[in-house]
Amino acid sequence: MPRVSYQDLFEALQSALLKLGIEPARASLCARLFAETTCDGVYSHGLNRFSLFVRTILNGTVNIHSQPELVTSSGALERWDGKFGIGNLNAYQSMGRAIELARRHGVGCVALANTNHWMRGGSYGWQAVDAGQIGICWTNTLANLPPWGASDPRLGNNPLVIAVPRPEGPVVLDMAMSQFSYGQLSSFQMRGKQLPVIGGYDLKGQLTQDPGAIEESKRPLPIGYWKGSGMALLLDLMATMLSGGQATHQIPRNPELENGLSQTFIAINLAALDQNNMAAQIADQIIESLQTSEGVRYPGQNVLKTRRENLEEGIPVEQSAWDELRSLSSEG
Amino acid sequence: MPRVSYQDLFEALQSALLKLGIEPARASLCARLFAETTCDGVYSHGLNRFSLFVRTILNGTVNIHSQPELVTSSGALERWDGKFGIGNLNAYQSMGRAIELARRHGVGCVALANTNHWMRGGSYGWQAVDAGQIGICWTNTLANLPPWGASDPRLGNNPLVIAVPRPEGPVVLDMAMSQFSYGQLSSFQMRGKQLPVIGGYDLKGQLTQDPGAIEESKRPLPIGYWKGSGMALLLDLMATMLSGGQATHQIPRNPELENGLSQTFIAINLAALDQNNMAAQIADQIIESLQTSEGVRYPGQNVLKTRRENLEEGIPVEQSAWDELRSLSSEG
Repeated sequence: MPRVSYQDLFEALQSALLKLGIEPARASLCARLFAETTCDGVYSHGLNRFSLFVRTILNGTVNIHSQPELVTSSGALERWDGKFGIGNLNAYQSMGRAIELARRHGVGCVALANTNHWMRGGSYGWQAVDAGQIGICWTNTLANLPPWGASDPRLGNNPLVIAVPRPEGPVVLDMAMSQFSYGQLSSFQMRGKQLPVIGGYDLKGQLTQDPGAIEESKRPLPIGYWKGSGMALLLDLMATMLSGGQATHQIPRNPELENGLSQTFIAINLAALDQNNMAAQIADQIIESLQTSEGVRYPGQNVLKTRRENLEEGIPVEQSAWDELRSLSSEG
Repeated sequence: MPRVSYQDLFEALQSALLKLGIEPARASLCARLFAETTCDGVYSHGLNRFSLFVRTILNGTVNIHSQPELVTSSGALERWDGKFGIGNLNAYQSMGRAIELARRHGVGCVALANTNHWMRGGSYGWQAVDAGQIGICWTNTLANLPPWGASDPRLGNNPLVIAVPRPEGPVVLDMAMSQFSYGQLSSFQMRGKQLPVIGGYDLKGQLTQDPGAIEESKRPLPIGYWKGSGMALLLDLMATMLSGGQATHQIPRNPELENGLSQTFIAINLAALDQNNMAAQIADQIIESLQTSEGVRYPGQNVLKTRRENLEEGIPVEQSAWDELRSLSSEG
């Protein structure tokens, strides 16, 4: 796979976004979020997702000129309207606002309605830990997951992000409520591999590790069966009730048209409690106790390593995605 | 199974707690929490757990006279010291405090160190929804769950509670990060039943539905394999870093001695945002969209029905547990 420098990737993204008519400061931030996602190794939601993102702008799913507006507030709790604007910019601003609220009130909570796909959810976890805070956020999605006890998708896989700051390397969990995403299923399928664990049902209703059988049945499993199913429901309920926006059952089911998502961003200003500066030591001890043997990793552990490698050696890109980006960003 | 009235159960519990020397108002609340848990059908953490609870008082694990003390506060965020007091009373006071903070600030977050087993976590979710708020809380536990990639228990199963108010019946998720608790494993084992899904490894390192094989290997699975493993870690990190208390790796591994837990309680005052009173309707629509076919239940759905039945017909009790309680509560 070819490698390109962070700067080249960023500039190509920025230039493509400018050509779409996005205001310069916003194009720059949006490009940075896509470039960082790719550089951190989350390729599915970085460069490889950019083409779909552009299509949702061109087809009117995403309104590039909208910016979030405050609807109601009550101290540390705010409701914002994302006005169908750019998903990663809306989410970035919302976590930024939650962090501000947490600086003032200890904790901050921003509910965001009418937004769009936030791309890599982990971005907003990293945003919180970079500000020294704990970040918790989640989004609803289009229906793509059968609840436990049913065979048709009525739940979203509703990714949840939890991020804890730590000087040695933050711990950032970014997980959907399905055991495998459709992207992962087709990646296993393309490589001719079975899933490492059971991932869903086949058409006969049998649990299977065959990714193709699950793509066919459209019955991926929630994590922990009834447990992840329940949790996906609660995340949708909270995001929608707090934001006053759309629930999963109201979101268009086509990824090209999926919009009007509901999200929640919580920031907790750990430093306000941690007056003796013990939190970093506590975190190190917990990580150390986890890793007394080989083979145990913590969420986010490899990100800093991948980031460093990709900054030094260039970011690996799919040739076709890179060619497409260059054609979108080139003059003329 | 014999049935006893709520009132008889409550009075027997209260009387036993008074005999142990607990102050009357606190004995009454503690008895109510145990009685409500049993009445709601969560038998494992109600009457059937009372005898272990009493032993932890008698052996000094739980200090019946301690009450939580405020350590630090920053607006809507507070750190409390549970001083090794009674777990359910400490947790109830902490969620109550988070609710108060949320009334004032929109959202409230209380971190509690040095507390004890909170018994039924769902109690504090119901407490929040009874106050019209969203409640989110979690606890760490003794190490009882191998992280993904290891075979010895270094994580707690760290139960998480998420509760959303709804006039037709709140949605209350109360779930540990293990697919099955040891209590559930031995209950399946005693009934000679296989688990409905894979629940852990046998001694040979093969995934299995045999509850006895998992009890033997002490290798239950986290929900969603690496995902629940990551989430259990994050819950321990957050609870411990926010409270300044003990992490799972520091908690005594014997259930009779397990103490000094760390917990977090978040309350969100939904009503402050929901000025047009749309939240109840949003919740009803989400539940309705979930239940277009038979067989799909939402978390907490059966609680109100069980509660009503048990209030009308008496609460089913294990004869031995009821006899033991009566001997603890009887005069002389």
